[in-house]
Amino acid sequence: MSLARFGRFTLPIVEALEGELSERGIAIFMCNATDDPERERQHLDQLLGKRIDGLVVTARRADKRAPIGPQANGLPVVYVFSQADDPTALSLVPDDEGGSRLAVDHLVGLGRRRIAHVTGPERFEAVRLRRHGYEAALAAHGLAAEPGFYLTGVWSEAWGREAIGQLFADGAVPPDAIFAGNDQIARGLTEALRDRGIRVPDDVAVVGFDNWDVMVSAARPPLTSVDMNLEALGREAGQRLIDMINGERLSGIRRLPCSLVVRESSIGAPPATLPQS
Amino acid sequence: MSLARFGRFTLPIVEALEGELSERGIAIFMCNATDDPERERQHLDQLLGKRIDGLVVTARRADKRAPIGPQANGLPVVYVFSQADDPTALSLVPDDEGGSRLAVDHLVGLGRRRIAHVTGPERFEAVRLRRHGYEAALAAHGLAAEPGFYLTGVWSEAWGREAIGQLFADGAVPPDAIFAGNDQIARGLTEALRDRGIRVPDDVAVVGFDNWDVMVSAARPPLTSVDMNLEALGREAGQRLIDMINGERLSGIRRLPCSLVVRESSIGAPPATLPQS
Repeated sequence: MSLARFGRFTLPIVEALEGELSERGIAIFMCNATDDPERERQHLDQLLGKRIDGLVVTARRADKRAPIGPQANGLPVVYVFSQADDPTALSLVPDDEGGSRLAVDHLVGLGRRRIAHVTGPERFEAVRLRRHGYEAALAAHGLAAEPGFYLTGVWSEAWGREAIGQLFADGAVPPDAIFAGNDQIARGLTEALRDRGIRVPDDVAVVGFDNWDVMVSAARPPLTSVDMNLEALGREAGQRLIDMINGERLSGIRRLPCSLVVRESSIGAPPATLPQS
Repeated sequence: MSLARFGRFTLPIVEALEGELSERGIAIFMCNATDDPERERQHLDQLLGKRIDGLVVTARRADKRAPIGPQANGLPVVYVFSQADDPTALSLVPDDEGGSRLAVDHLVGLGRRRIAHVTGPERFEAVRLRRHGYEAALAAHGLAAEPGFYLTGVWSEAWGREAIGQLFADGAVPPDAIFAGNDQIARGLTEALRDRGIRVPDDVAVVGFDNWDVMVSAARPPLTSVDMNLEALGREAGQRLIDMINGERLSGIRRLPCSLVVRESSIGAPPATLPQS
């Protein structure tokens, strides 16, 4: 009862959703629509032919999409990490803006004042929301984004490395912290800082977004990162789908809280144990 | 008609499988068994209740597993990136041994003679097969693995970085090439070489395994890597499942060829264009 474009973010959501439903003896069948409306329509027809009780729709990115086809009329549908362009639909997404506030509050709490934001393409709603959260959190602390401190690019380490060249160009007053739009960018930032002999976090603290294990643990130092709590999102989707199957009418866009996982890229290594005197 | 433990390797297989089947108007429903035999049994019962025509079983690693439950008796089943411990079953896996030979042949063709192999845990069949391929390819060129040139660890960048400490310890005669068991290890190798001022590939060529886009493109330099051709494996699974639904009896372990994707970590950057004189 799920229709997805599979990707890295989808996996933990689907696993948690399935855990939630299978505990209640509800079977979950998945289809992969590969961002193709025609294939999605076929899948939906096939699923409806199997007399499903409900449908969960997810995606590779949480942006707005056309609502699921009219043939599903009356079927309980939950959109998760995906938003239906339909005010009567229920959509569950991470609170990207709140995630940014966690990152900035943490950095300000560590005494940082010149905080840059290096992020992905603005066509992603997540990029726009994370920027709002960054600016709102700075403002709440009486700070402002300096000119040149908000940089957009692509979701890659190479972009993170390139951004350091811009932030640390001759004559620029560099940041003392950088909040990255994802962990790949954050990792690129740390590597380029390392290449320049700039210490992380002593000179510049770095915070990423996604808490992607492969990236945060391999980075040097390991990355502090915002976690979108995808498992919680998947469980919530399962619970709300059951509510709807039981007759509740739910709608609107619900933004579930992110959390911050703190590692060395912002707070430094734990002090070595001193020898007993 | 698919039962999977989803992971990074599963996604391209499942997408290609689905492309192959949906072209023929065959619907594919997926279940995620999360390596849990009890949940797998439940899913299988639910799928059988939906009167499916066939089943594809996949996994996060291609090792042998218990055959699917007896309640599927008579149903066409294809194991892909997974092997049934049952000689009457059909299993499709990448040719890991052949993949290693491609890597070593490439390095020897570039003039390298002291080729180390830094890889993952030997409990993975893939590790054992890749080692066989490495040793067989060296032998075919009249070479042998030097003592200390075969190192096993975990599938991480940190292990790749640590292995450089062992290969370049004081007094050791270091390798002029390293073939890594996966791309994360390969990336760790290149970073630790960079830290020591050892040039890749001028001093030491590096080849990875998996051709994982996130790793090969972000590494400095970008990684030459063995590609398991997971899409071809997924398409093959779809085609053979159709054969079996049409009454063919297929069995045995079929190893599909890998290919080598050559990048700068083995052959270096393309020469800069010389100015016209």
